[in-house]
Amino acid sequence: MSAPATSASNPVFPFHLVRADLERVEAAILDQARAFDPGVEGYVSYVCKTSGKRIRPALAVLAGGATGGTHEGHTRLSVILELVHIASLVHDDIMDGAEIRRQVPTAVAKWGSSLSVLLGDSLFAYALELATEFDDTHVCRTIARASRDVCSGEILQTQRRFDLNLSVADYLKMIEMKTAALFAAASELGARLNHQSEALQRSLRDYGLKLGTAYQIYDDCLDLVGDEKAVGKTLRTDLARGKLTLPILFLLEGATDSQKQKLSRMLLKGEPMDTSILAGIADYDGAVERAVKFAQDMLVSARADLIALNATPHKQALEDIVGYLHGLLDQCRTIR
Amino acid sequence: MSAPATSASNPVFPFHLVRADLERVEAAILDQARAFDPGVEGYVSYVCKTSGKRIRPALAVLAGGATGGTHEGHTRLSVILELVHIASLVHDDIMDGAEIRRQVPTAVAKWGSSLSVLLGDSLFAYALELATEFDDTHVCRTIARASRDVCSGEILQTQRRFDLNLSVADYLKMIEMKTAALFAAASELGARLNHQSEALQRSLRDYGLKLGTAYQIYDDCLDLVGDEKAVGKTLRTDLARGKLTLPILFLLEGATDSQKQKLSRMLLKGEPMDTSILAGIADYDGAVERAVKFAQDMLVSARADLIALNATPHKQALEDIVGYLHGLLDQCRTIR
Repeated sequence: MSAPATSASNPVFPFHLVRADLERVEAAILDQARAFDPGVEGYVSYVCKTSGKRIRPALAVLAGGATGGTHEGHTRLSVILELVHIASLVHDDIMDGAEIRRQVPTAVAKWGSSLSVLLGDSLFAYALELATEFDDTHVCRTIARASRDVCSGEILQTQRRFDLNLSVADYLKMIEMKTAALFAAASELGARLNHQSEALQRSLRDYGLKLGTAYQIYDDCLDLVGDEKAVGKTLRTDLARGKLTLPILFLLEGATDSQKQKLSRMLLKGEPMDTSILAGIADYDGAVERAVKFAQDMLVSARADLIALNATPHKQALEDIVGYLHGLLDQCRTIR
Repeated sequence: MSAPATSASNPVFPFHLVRADLERVEAAILDQARAFDPGVEGYVSYVCKTSGKRIRPALAVLAGGATGGTHEGHTRLSVILELVHIASLVHDDIMDGAEIRRQVPTAVAKWGSSLSVLLGDSLFAYALELATEFDDTHVCRTIARASRDVCSGEILQTQRRFDLNLSVADYLKMIEMKTAALFAAASELGARLNHQSEALQRSLRDYGLKLGTAYQIYDDCLDLVGDEKAVGKTLRTDLARGKLTLPILFLLEGATDSQKQKLSRMLLKGEPMDTSILAGIADYDGAVERAVKFAQDMLVSARADLIALNATPHKQALEDIVGYLHGLLDQCRTIR
């Protein structure tokens, strides 16, 4: 794999090419709040304003640009995917009891869980309503399927909390559903809206699936090694909630039986576990290193999925995302 | 309005005509669980088995039968509407902390709120995924819109809890969204799937909207006057949760200022309020009577919306539903 497009010390997401597209998407997302009942509008615009990097829209727009150019359909697709993502965050924050996201109070912290359950539901339903505006029902179906995968992935994760029998394969399947499914839909449908071949759509889908998987592994490593202030959200929460992420699974694989027992006792008691405690249990550094490497290998494969695309600045940007994430993963090595 | 088709003492839902259709729907609903990940399937089939009278499917099938006959599309439509309904019940039960529904433990009582949030989400997303199988995107859009209305209506209700300024108009708008929207979609789309005129679709939509509104008013009266054992769910909970339903709004309208203050004090303190306490505050009997009458008047109007339909046994059954609900409302008069 060639060197990442940005230095490991300060990776930058390649937004430059799609700035105009993303501004349209941003305006359209904020517009959507107005489609709701006035009593609901304020809640919708709050969560739409405070949620995110718009990675899924960027992917949809770049996949469009790399396969003939973007049009109104790409804006709509981007809005829909982001609304589904925001809906899932609103519900995640309820389950995680998260108080801060993107530096501001979460919906559940502001308005409680009842309203947040319904707010997430409304966003979901509205996103799928927007999806029905595509004449191509395959587009709508793919979005609905990805939305279901997001939820099913979360269910599996909730179900397998504190389950020390979780395998790496189980973990990968879960994060593919809960995170990568929307990435895959973004890149696949970005090409489909330009009437590209099934083979090309599939390649871009695979690219999104791998990118999303690597992104979630990065996020899971960040929860262990990141700096709360820099990241802007509460960290070190996965283990307390019994979420066994890839670095932890690797840690368990490398642990002796007595180390495993110690870790499982601490997990089940809900004892706070920071890096220093984990480091005392088994080969913590080695486990994070293995997870980083695993994700970076997946990125190599994601880049290979782009091979059939004609050389364009947008293709380059899709490659640059790979480089960006590669750089972020490198940071996980150096922070700790 | 002519006499209800069944006696007031024992109203029976006119299921007889559509039994075969509803058996197909039932089998299809239970089949859907298999479309989920094996880790999720068990939860889905539990809530699908334990939720309900299948009124929305019955409406869709009857509207189909009354406009040319039912086909596979009506089964699919019925399954989708019921899944949306089940999803909303799963989420309602979280918010209401309900432990029993249809005589068995609710999802939230069995598995906690996190899993139930996600389970509802998955059902929602899956229902909308199924909806994309209709070539007519208007069908899918109408279902998505109704689903959003269900959620938005619930948000409004949550928001206006304990709000003694709630008007009857606000209440009606809320229940139209949270309950009647799915009834309206069922009857409208039942006709649309038979390529009926826009005017007829609209009439059937209006019928469903009014029927659903009257049904919710009945449900709200039942919460006050019903018998828990006979109804099979926890009652007398609306007021404790600050839900101001039509009989309560009428009670407030008829109360003196000091009676209103007493009621609002009790409401805000969350004091248990049973029928005898309410009866001591203002004209409780009169308020329930007014709510029952209001719903029954709406049913007269619903029956009038059927006028353009050819005389068929299915049209008769749609009228019989009106009579059935009229009879149930009469019971609210006699139980207390």
